[in-house]
Amino acid sequence: MSGTIYVINPNSTERVTRGIDEAVAPLRMAGGPAIECLTLADGPPGIQSQRDVDGLIPALLKRAAALETEAAAFVVACFSDPGMHSLREQSTKPVLGIAECGVLTALTLGQRFGIIAMLENSIPRHLRYLGAMGMMDRFAGDLPVNLTIQEMADERITLERMIGVGRALRDTHHADVLVMGCAGMARFREPLERELGVPVVEPTQAAVTMAVGRVRLGWGGRPLTRG
Amino acid sequence: MSGTIYVINPNSTERVTRGIDEAVAPLRMAGGPAIECLTLADGPPGIQSQRDVDGLIPALLKRAAALETEAAAFVVACFSDPGMHSLREQSTKPVLGIAECGVLTALTLGQRFGIIAMLENSIPRHLRYLGAMGMMDRFAGDLPVNLTIQEMADERITLERMIGVGRALRDTHHADVLVMGCAGMARFREPLERELGVPVVEPTQAAVTMAVGRVRLGWGGRPLTRG
Amino acid sequence: MSGTIYVINPNSTERVTRGIDEAVAPLRMAGGPAIECLTLADGPPGIQSQRDVDGLIPALLKRAAALETEAAAFVVACFSDPGMHSLREQSTKPVLGIAECGVLTALTLGQRFGIIAMLENSIPRHLRYLGAMGMMDRFAGDLPVNLTIQEMADERITLERMIGVGRALRDTHHADVLVMGCAGMARFREPLERELGVPVVEPTQAAVTMAVGRVRLGWGGRPLTRG
Amino acid sequence: MSGTIYVINPNSTERVTRGIDEAVAPLRMAGGPAIECLTLADGPPGIQSQRDVDGLIPALLKRAAALETEAAAFVVACFSDPGMHSLREQSTKPVLGIAECGVLTALTLGQRFGIIAMLENSIPRHLRYLGAMGMMDRFAGDLPVNLTIQEMADERITLERMIGVGRALRDTHHADVLVMGCAGMARFREPLERELGVPVVEPTQAAVTMAVGRVRLGWGGRPLTRG
Amino acid sequence: MSGTIYVINPNSTERVTRGIDEAVAPLRMAGGPAIECLTLADGPPGIQSQRDVDGLIPALLKRAAALETEAAAFVVACFSDPGMHSLREQSTKPVLGIAECGVLTALTLGQRFGIIAMLENSIPRHLRYLGAMGMMDRFAGDLPVNLTIQEMADERITLERMIGVGRALRDTHHADVLVMGCAGMARFREPLERELGVPVVEPTQAAVTMAVGRVRLGWGGRPLTRG
Amino acid sequence: MSGTIYVINPNSTERVTRGIDEAVAPLRMAGGPAIECLTLADGPPGIQSQRDVDGLIPALLKRAAALETEAAAFVVACFSDPGMHSLREQSTKPVLGIAECGVLTALTLGQRFGIIAMLENSIPRHLRYLGAMGMMDRFAGDLPVNLTIQEMADERITLERMIGVGRALRDTHHADVLVMGCAGMARFREPLERELGVPVVEPTQAAVTMAVGRVRLGWGGRPLTRG
Repeated sequence: MSGTIYVINPNSTERVTRGIDEAVAPLRMAGGPAIECLTLADGPPGIQSQRDVDGLIPALLKRAAALETEAAAFVVACFSDPGMHSLREQSTKPVLGIAECGVLTALTLGQRFGIIAMLENSIPRHLRYLGAMGMMDRFAGDLPVNLTIQEMADERITLERMIGVGRALRDTHHADVLVMGCAGMARFREPLERELGVPVVEPTQAAVTMAVGRVRLGWGGRPLTRG
Repeated sequence: MSGTIYVINPNSTERVTRGIDEAVAPLRMAGGPAIECLTLADGPPGIQSQRDVDGLIPALLKRAAALETEAAAFVVACFSDPGMHSLREQSTKPVLGIAECGVLTALTLGQRFGIIAMLENSIPRHLRYLGAMGMMDRFAGDLPVNLTIQEMADERITLERMIGVGRALRDTHHADVLVMGCAGMARFREPLERELGVPVVEPTQAAVTMAVGRVRLGWGGRPLTRG
Repeated sequence: MSGTIYVINPNSTERVTRGIDEAVAPLRMAGGPAIECLTLADGPPGIQSQRDVDGLIPALLKRAAALETEAAAFVVACFSDPGMHSLREQSTKPVLGIAECGVLTALTLGQRFGIIAMLENSIPRHLRYLGAMGMMDRFAGDLPVNLTIQEMADERITLERMIGVGRALRDTHHADVLVMGCAGMARFREPLERELGVPVVEPTQAAVTMAVGRVRLGWGGRPLTRG
Repeated sequence: MSGTIYVINPNSTERVTRGIDEAVAPLRMAGGPAIECLTLADGPPGIQSQRDVDGLIPALLKRAAALETEAAAFVVACFSDPGMHSLREQSTKPVLGIAECGVLTALTLGQRFGIIAMLENSIPRHLRYLGAMGMMDRFAGDLPVNLTIQEMADERITLERMIGVGRALRDTHHADVLVMGCAGMARFREPLERELGVPVVEPTQAAVTMAVGRVRLGWGGRPLTRG
Repeated sequence: MSGTIYVINPNSTERVTRGIDEAVAPLRMAGGPAIECLTLADGPPGIQSQRDVDGLIPALLKRAAALETEAAAFVVACFSDPGMHSLREQSTKPVLGIAECGVLTALTLGQRFGIIAMLENSIPRHLRYLGAMGMMDRFAGDLPVNLTIQEMADERITLERMIGVGRALRDTHHADVLVMGCAGMARFREPLERELGVPVVEPTQAAVTMAVGRVRLGWGGRPLTRG
Repeated sequence: MSGTIYVINPNSTERVTRGIDEAVAPLRMAGGPAIECLTLADGPPGIQSQRDVDGLIPALLKRAAALETEAAAFVVACFSDPGMHSLREQSTKPVLGIAECGVLTALTLGQRFGIIAMLENSIPRHLRYLGAMGMMDRFAGDLPVNLTIQEMADERITLERMIGVGRALRDTHHADVLVMGCAGMARFREPLERELGVPVVEPTQAAVTMAVGRVRLGWGGRPLTRG
């Protein structure tokens, strides 16, 4: 039960990691496992394509291998869960992905979930993943905020755009729960929820919640070999 | 963030509540929320039919209403999640069900889940619920142990039967993760996992894990009214 | 083959029962079973929430138990089919629910069905039920009329609103058959169908149709015990 | 509401029509519609292939056209529902198919249905049809009796084989309700049910039940043109 | 590997056959199989209903039977794939349908496919077929161009209408690949793709591509009898 | 229309590439595109895990980038389709994967497909991919041959094991078409088909077939930018 939950931001942008770190702070409890948020220095600055996703996996696996002994669990903190299944093979510790945990947690908060995506071209990738997860019967829609770099620097514009997308998911796609399709933006969760009147899931919080449980309960990682 | 997570065993059998209490002990952390396990005195001794499920809901809601002020969250600790959706309407606190959380957690541990049911006649009820959850694409099978009361009193026989059912789910139904379809039997989780070589989910542990996160993060219960 | 088909309106509003009674009149045939429509005096005045649904089940089961000897079959006449599965356990007679029969009948009249719901907050409940029924591949949409009590008293406004919702289901959700998501409003079926140009299913009529057949054919209720 | 329900056996074997006629006898009620069972003289002696199904449709449509004025409704009485959708276009009267109604009725009697097919090579055809109906989430299995002509002449052997297939569907495929995948064998329904302990649906009875309701309620056939 | 791929246009309109012939020209390769496009003289002038589909099958099968010896493969060139499964039973050669191949090919070009249908009343027929194919999880939408005969004679109007429908499928139904729901209009494929910015599949080209492979590889037609 | 179809074997085993080369030989036609089979020298000797799949993608993309100008199309010749979606982003040429094309082609040959996998631990990976493809409604089963290296060197043992697995898929899982879940073993296709009596798809042949069509028709690769 000792060891640290390593939350790995697989992009190289420290600002995102800081956002994640603040997001998971409430899950650091006196008697609970340590939670450390890391930046994958060798990752791309942002993860915008399947190539970005696939390309960072070797670096992610290498970083995780170096942490294996100290690790109580790993959380892959990018909404495409890059390398999650590979890391589950490599590590003997629990490995969780934020998209997987974000979507699963949403299913406890509403009947049809919508995803607030960052970029339009992520959506087919999300859909393939949701299909792999078998989630299509509960899926309402996935719409992008499509912000430029300049716009993303402006918190007010970012929030407004997320509200706009959330409203479309709620009113046109009939979502009754939303998942934020990104890491590091937990500060927008509460304003979104208040403005939209439906529950909003921040996926790193959802994933670290499940990691804390796994560590406390001593549920291992890699599937055991058959007896 | 103050308040207690009330885990309500909706049957009247104290022995089951004690089993749940032991199961969730590792999730009691110094800095985390209190977790209290209760027996629904007005519930049936065991929950074996849809009538048992439906019949206990008024008593469950009444008990929860009395706890509402003190509650940080509620967990309904029976594998049919009786009254979960009603309680979500009644309470302003997070409400989680062990079947829902058990199955969702299993999806992070394998691709096809199997359920070790207690009784054969529960299975159509489980299937309706899995359909409502949209889980049929990941479902491998659901098989009963069908123990008599005498047999259930014998731990060795109970474990053997569960192993037999788990083996059939693994080998014939191709499950690569199993969910225990009952509360209060967490002591069998590890032996099952060791014997079968696939991950086994104990559903009260899965649900309380998610409740702890919900409480720590201050994610509310009832869906907000629309803005 | 003797006995009466009891159509139980599980809310306490006599006006609804009278509407059901008129609806099923054409199914009373000289040589066919008697059909009697009853009001559940202990039910809520209207069924608007999961709590209403769950809360009335004990009273419904009690009422049905008292009718068991005289009954040829039971029809639960509320679009949430409250207690249907419990009543199937309790009774040895056929038990049908109007939502189940309404949706199944719609599948013989069009490829994608839409539901005209009364209240918005019923929709997640409907979706869970449709999921349990495995109907999502044929589901087009479910939209509420959201009438106030005053508005419901005005037949013209009620019809207009139902037409509006039906039109949205037909044109935006591509439904080619509609199901009325309520009991006791059969008088609107024909005007709706005429106005919208797609078949409209009145669910109590659909359920009693199937009950008449079950009674005439002597197909029992409760699944037999295995030989 | 006047007129006759024409149940058309689309194969040319009178013996099958006689079996259908006996099956639907209990649905002839003093105040209800007349029910007449016909043999399609130009149909094949048995319907064993997709070619048989497709090939008989012109003759079926011609026969139905000649009956249109007298008809209150049509039932296509072959488990492949040949020409059902074409007949729905041609006729202004309700048109029902026995496979469609048989499967839909089964959904009110169990959670997972199995089909007792006559011939192995019908099964892909059944599966395409069940997929078109959106029924795969409730489907347990479809197994053939594969009787030779000689064997089919022997009632005892036929029943034994059907029991064997039903038992496999129940025990290996976990069906809790069965549909007879043929017309004209209603006499085996009750022995099957008694022997297997699960409900068994005879599909011509299921379809004629729904036809009687459609006629009595005056629900039209062909989807109306849009207003 | 010798023999001719017969592409049969099952309607009697030579102009459509000429359009198909031009479409498949690039698939005629020096070393590849001959490809011949035929008009079914006994087919209807256009295929607009299920009756048209079902009614032409006997003539199609007869025509194909006459070509059996010379045939290397058959392609049924109507978007309802009329008689495809019957022809697979009749012929020992590969049989492909343009709807089946068009949709399957679209799955390699995008995550959610939309169909540009000719007529509104084809859509339920398409949906039944897509259900039979198990394609509903990838289906975005199916919208009709609804052109009159006069409008269809005007290439500019036809293209404009197809662009309009394609845009609605892309923007409202979130399709990222489109399938032309008709034969003989391959000349519009490239302008559509250029205008809409998403891949567009011409289904006769998709089907003949697969037929060429089947012929070259010597993969037979009819499923073999079991060893 | 000029250029070469590059079939890239992403493992480093030349023997496998030679097997692929022989498999696709019939698809080299006088007037058709050149087809060249390559070995990814930097790939793993065999692809046995998600780590193998993810790890080879950078090398695959690099190799393909170097071939981009000469390429008419790319085929990724490993049954996990590693890097296929990344390569679709990178290249302006058509990119096809053998698992995707193998499964899609199987859907034209039977109603329920089974997969003959090489290794047991590939199966959850296959299932995730089939889910992403939306294929679960047509999926019969996926069973491994589980051969040791020594056994794989013995052609007779390999074929026997594949026949055994194919028989189980056909008889226990009710598959009526099989897909070989590997590249480079096309020589076993015909013996398997003959022995099992159901069609067997060799996936590199299926993929190259579709690539030839794409090249001849001039259908581009990367989805165009929206107009």
